[in-house]
Amino acid sequence: MSTPALDRTAVTEAPILDVLAERWSTRIFDAQATIDEAALSSALEAARWAPTAANTQPWRVIVARRGSEQHATIVASLAGFNAAWAGDAAALVVFVAETTRDDQPMPWALYDTGQAAAHFTVQAHADGLSTHQMGGFDRDAISAAFGLGDAFTPISVMAVGELGDIRTASEELQQRENAPRTRRPIAESLIVNA
Amino acid sequence: MSTPALDRTAVTEAPILDVLAERWSTRIFDAQATIDEAALSSALEAARWAPTAANTQPWRVIVARRGSEQHATIVASLAGFNAAWAGDAAALVVFVAETTRDDQPMPWALYDTGQAAAHFTVQAHADGLSTHQMGGFDRDAISAAFGLGDAFTPISVMAVGELGDIRTASEELQQRENAPRTRRPIAESLIVNA
Repeated sequence: MSTPALDRTAVTEAPILDVLAERWSTRIFDAQATIDEAALSSALEAARWAPTAANTQPWRVIVARRGSEQHATIVASLAGFNAAWAGDAAALVVFVAETTRDDQPMPWALYDTGQAAAHFTVQAHADGLSTHQMGGFDRDAISAAFGLGDAFTPISVMAVGELGDIRTASEELQQRENAPRTRRPIAESLIVNA
Repeated sequence: MSTPALDRTAVTEAPILDVLAERWSTRIFDAQATIDEAALSSALEAARWAPTAANTQPWRVIVARRGSEQHATIVASLAGFNAAWAGDAAALVVFVAETTRDDQPMPWALYDTGQAAAHFTVQAHADGLSTHQMGGFDRDAISAAFGLGDAFTPISVMAVGELGDIRTASEELQQRENAPRTRRPIAESLIVNA
C-alpha cells in the first residue's frame, strides 16, 4: 500500500523558527544515500558550541557510517523496533555523557549531553539531514565494544541521514511515520508562571 | 572603566546557523527591561517541541518574572557569583526534570530536559533575548519552595532577558563578558569516527 508523506511541521501555540517546527524524528531513512559529510561536520560543530555547565563540555560522540564495522556494532545493540529501521541511516551517532571526571560526579553531564544532541539535530535539519534519537539500545554492549570505561556512559543513539521514500516502506513504518505529532499543551509544563 | 562589548559570535570549524553561532551566555542583563512576553512564549513553545524519549516529555519549567516573589525566591537560591548578576534578568526559568513517573525511573529525564532547554535558548536568541543557564543553585531550596516532591528535580536556572550595557557593569562582569569563547576542537569529542 502506498501512503503519501504528510507535512510533519509542528502546529504551534506560538511562532517558532521554521527549523525547530520542521525538525521531527523520522524512521524512514534512505538506505542507499551516504552521509552528507559537510552537513555532518556542521551538525557536530553545532553540538560543539552548545552551552555546558561551567563550559565543562561533558559529552562525546561515536560516529559510525553505514558499511563500517562500528555501524554494524551499533545496529546490533538496538532494542526492539529500532533495529528494524535505524540500520538504514547513513550514520549512527552515539551521544556519550562524561558522568565522572577525576573521580568526581558531573551532575550536569546528561543534561548537557542532551543540549549538545539538540544542537546537532537543529543544525542537521537545517542542512537537510533527518535525525531520530533512540534510548532503546544495550548500553553495556556499546560501552564494552567501544571501551568507554566507567567515566563515560552512552545515553542515546541518533540515526542521521536522508529521508527515505515512505511509499516503499513497510506498512508499520508508514503508519508510525504519519501518526499525528503531539505534545501536551505548554500550560501543562508550567509548574509556576509568575 | 568602560569596556566595549566584543563580537561574541563563535569562531567555528564548520559553518553553523547564525542563531547557533551567535547564541552565548551573557552575565549582563538589563535590570529595567521587562520580559518580552511574545518571545518568552515562543521560547517555551520551542522547548515544547523538543524531542524526548518515546515522547515522554519528562521536563517542566518554573517561570518567574522580576518583581515576583518567586523570582526573589530563585535569586535567593543562587550560589556564588550567580547571585551577583542573575537577579537583573527579567525572568528566571527553572528547568525541572521528571526523574520518576509512576515510581519508575525516567532514564532520559535529564538528557531530555537539556534538549528542551537548548531549544528554549535557540528560540530566545532568535527573538533577541539573551540566556544564561546556571547549575549553581540550592536544589533543595527550590524543590521545597515550589513543592516539587520526589518525582521532580530542578536541574538548571536560566536567566532570560535583554542584554544589558557592559559599559556600566562591574569590572569583574566586564572581564568575564569579554573573555574568549572557547571549546575543545571537535576532533577531541570524537571517541570514534568510522
